[in-house]
Amino acid sequence: MENNKTLHLLTHHRSIRHFKNQALSADVIHTLLEAAQRTSSSMFMQQFSVISVTDANLKKQLADITTYPFTKSSGHLFVMVADQRRNEFIGQEADTDTHLLHDGDRSLAAFDDAALAGQSIVTAAESMGLGAVILGSILNDAQQVIDLLHLPKLTFPVFGIAIGYPDEKPNLKPRLPLEAVHFDNYYQDPDKKTLDAYDQTIEKYYAQRGTNNRVETYRHHILHDMQVSPQKRSQILIVLKQQGFFEN
Amino acid sequence: MENNKTLHLLTHHRSIRHFKNQALSADVIHTLLEAAQRTSSSMFMQQFSVISVTDANLKKQLADITTYPFTKSSGHLFVMVADQRRNEFIGQEADTDTHLLHDGDRSLAAFDDAALAGQSIVTAAESMGLGAVILGSILNDAQQVIDLLHLPKLTFPVFGIAIGYPDEKPNLKPRLPLEAVHFDNYYQDPDKKTLDAYDQTIEKYYAQRGTNNRVETYRHHILHDMQVSPQKRSQILIVLKQQGFFEN
Repeated sequence: MENNKTLHLLTHHRSIRHFKNQALSADVIHTLLEAAQRTSSSMFMQQFSVISVTDANLKKQLADITTYPFTKSSGHLFVMVADQRRNEFIGQEADTDTHLLHDGDRSLAAFDDAALAGQSIVTAAESMGLGAVILGSILNDAQQVIDLLHLPKLTFPVFGIAIGYPDEKPNLKPRLPLEAVHFDNYYQDPDKKTLDAYDQTIEKYYAQRGTNNRVETYRHHILHDMQVSPQKRSQILIVLKQQGFFEN
Repeated sequence: MENNKTLHLLTHHRSIRHFKNQALSADVIHTLLEAAQRTSSSMFMQQFSVISVTDANLKKQLADITTYPFTKSSGHLFVMVADQRRNEFIGQEADTDTHLLHDGDRSLAAFDDAALAGQSIVTAAESMGLGAVILGSILNDAQQVIDLLHLPKLTFPVFGIAIGYPDEKPNLKPRLPLEAVHFDNYYQDPDKKTLDAYDQTIEKYYAQRGTNNRVETYRHHILHDMQVSPQKRSQILIVLKQQGFFEN
C-alpha cells in the first residue's frame, strides 16, 4: 500500500469539535489562505471568496445559526463564499451582458470552487496539527448569513470552517464500504446486504465512542434527516435565486 | 512561514494535462479512493459516488464531450457523482417520504460532498508524484454523461478527474492576489487597481509560458467566458431538474 505523510493525513481525517482556547496566528491563517488560493478552479475563474469572521458579535450570531458553540470558540472561523460577483464587476466595467453568470452551470462552478478551496484549507490545517470541522449548518439560515456578512448578489455562503488546536482525538468514524460508493464504468444501485453490514458497523461505533454515544444505525441516521429539515434550510432555493444563482 | 510537505504540495499545485503512457496500479487507485472516502461530508451523509471509467469506448466518448484528448489518455479517469440516490434507496426500503432529497439544500450538499472528495483525490494523487486535472468540461453535455454512465435520478456528474504520471512541469499559474479573495468579516467589492495589477501579472504569464502562449489578461479571459458558453452547458438547470435536483 502506498503511503506518505499527506496520505496518512487524508486517510485519518476526523472532524474536530473541541478546541483549545488558542487563536491561530496571522502566519498560520495566511498559510491556509495560500492553500485555498492555489486550488484548482473551474475554467481558472477562481469563483470563490473567503471571509475570516473575527468580530465577536458576528461569531456569536453565526454560532446561534449553526447551534454549535464551537463556531465562536474555535481558533479561527472561515466562511467559504461562492462568488460570481467579481466576474459580474468585470462585466459591468466593460458594459457587457452578464446574464450567463446567473445560469445553473456558473452557479455550480462557484459552489464547486468554494468547496474545493475549502477542502484544501482543511487538509492544510491538519498538516499543521490543527483540527477542523466543516459547518454546513450555517445554511440553517442562509439569508441571515448573507445579511451578517454583507454578501451582495451573485455571492452565497457555502459552508463555514472552524479551525483550532484540537482538544479531543475522536476515533475514526467508519465510512461506507468502498463497494457502496465506487463503481467501474456504470452506476450501481445500493446493495441491501452492504448497507446491512454498514449499519452494524455504525451501530457499534456509536455505542462504543466516548462522547455522545447512542443506539443508531446508518439507516436510522439517513431516515431521520430525510424526514426533518430546518424550514429555512429546505427553502434555500428561494434564497439562492434571490442572490442571482440558478436563475436558468 | 509554516511549512511541511503537505503545505508544499497544496501551495504548488498545477493542473497536469500531459501524461506518460502509464496506467495507475490498482493499489494506487485504491489509495486515492480511501482518501475520497475519509473526506468530510455534509451531516455525515456521504452523498457522493465515484466512477472509474476504464472502458475504452466510454473514455473516447467522454474525451469527445470534454474536447480534451487527455481525458482518454491519462493514467486513470474518475467521474465524481453527486448522489442522493443511495439515500432515496434507504427511504424507499422504509416506505418513507423522500421529497426532502430533492430540495436545493440537499442538492447543494451532494455537489459539495462530491467536490470535497474530489479535492482529496487530487491532493492524494499529487502526494504520490502523480499529476491531475479536474474536468468540469464533462458538463459540456451533462445528459450524455448521465446516459453513458447509467446515472439514475438523484445522481449527477460533478466533474471528472484525469490522473497520471506527469509528462510536463508547467510554471505555477498566478492566482488572484489575496486581498481580492479574502476579507475580514464583510464582503468587499472588487478593487479596480487590484484587478489592473493582476491583469498585468496574467498577461506576462501567458506571454512567457512555454506552450500555448498568448496575449490575454485576466479580464479578457473572464469577459470571453461571460459571452459564450456551450449551449447544453448554459441549459444545465433543465438536466439538473430532470435528475431530481433543485426541485424546490
